[in-house]
Amino acid sequence: MSLALDPAAQDLLFREARTANTFTDEPVTEEQVQAIYDLVKYGPTAFNQSPLRVTLVRSPEARERLVAHMAEGNRPKTASAPLVAILSADNEFHEELPALFPHFPQAKDVFFAERPAREQAALVNATLQAGYFIVGVRAAGLAAGPMTGFDPAGVQKEFLDDDHTPLMVVNIGKPGEDAWFPRSPRLAYDDVVTTV
Amino acid sequence: MSLALDPAAQDLLFREARTANTFTDEPVTEEQVQAIYDLVKYGPTAFNQSPLRVTLVRSPEARERLVAHMAEGNRPKTASAPLVAILSADNEFHEELPALFPHFPQAKDVFFAERPAREQAALVNATLQAGYFIVGVRAAGLAAGPMTGFDPAGVQKEFLDDDHTPLMVVNIGKPGEDAWFPRSPRLAYDDVVTTV
Repeated sequence: MSLALDPAAQDLLFREARTANTFTDEPVTEEQVQAIYDLVKYGPTAFNQSPLRVTLVRSPEARERLVAHMAEGNRPKTASAPLVAILSADNEFHEELPALFPHFPQAKDVFFAERPAREQAALVNATLQAGYFIVGVRAAGLAAGPMTGFDPAGVQKEFLDDDHTPLMVVNIGKPGEDAWFPRSPRLAYDDVVTTV
Repeated sequence: MSLALDPAAQDLLFREARTANTFTDEPVTEEQVQAIYDLVKYGPTAFNQSPLRVTLVRSPEARERLVAHMAEGNRPKTASAPLVAILSADNEFHEELPALFPHFPQAKDVFFAERPAREQAALVNATLQAGYFIVGVRAAGLAAGPMTGFDPAGVQKEFLDDDHTPLMVVNIGKPGEDAWFPRSPRLAYDDVVTTV
């Protein structure tokens, strides 16, 4: 085993971590979400653009509005998870770039003056950050249930604005009874990695 | 601190890990890349579609071809990193779905019969896996230098095919002298997370 990360951490983040479909009632606190963010904010993005935004759906009324936009198979778990987060990409992230990338403050105008270029960069970099966020939820000892099965236009209209594109909805909490199917197979190394 | 992950692992993966711009000569072995893949392959994707593909650029001749397609500012580090990997999305991932998602083998035809839907899903899910991959490189005690500054059409034509979309190029190795700038600031929690 050639990894520097200790085996307990490997298990916590990847080997034993699973996408949960049921949860206990134990709440997910504001402090836990802050600790997750304070860890994963350091994950790299292009020009440190950090376009990921997170909407925590905490009120029962907001939860109900969100569930209505989920694909039918995702509704029960979205309704019952202790916390649900909408992850989105901020297409106007360039406004923060002079502060976030002080080595090259011109990046805002040189690379991101046009909205289509910003949308593309925001999609890729916020999705990369979504990967870090899922790892961070697991680092907090919680299960994450990321879902792309929802009506994006409906979620955007209901919770976001024209400058924010929804990426995924993540159920967060301690896994409950029968929280998952048996682990599905993964692709073999040689099916994924080639060398030139 | 509300995290279950021990502080040394937090440092290794996020707090002290940095995007390296210079590297030592120490090679990155096949065993290390296998160990990284065998960890991060467990990261979740929609329907377990696992569309990330990795091309390791090992031969000097291939390295030269890749450097030619990099943005000028990325050429010296791409030329000197011990290992360079091209991460891409497999737009024909659905062929593997009946094996990868045996709970619902019909997903291949129900959701992914059309190429545009596959391309969108492959982009999002392979980018999510790119986030796991970067964390995995760090878990191996190595620095990752992800870059999107390259000519995607050129890289695709030179190294991939019409079914594989390049996402990013990642330099991998032990950090060398003056490997990084001072850490750039991150957004405050309240600028990123809102509650409804």
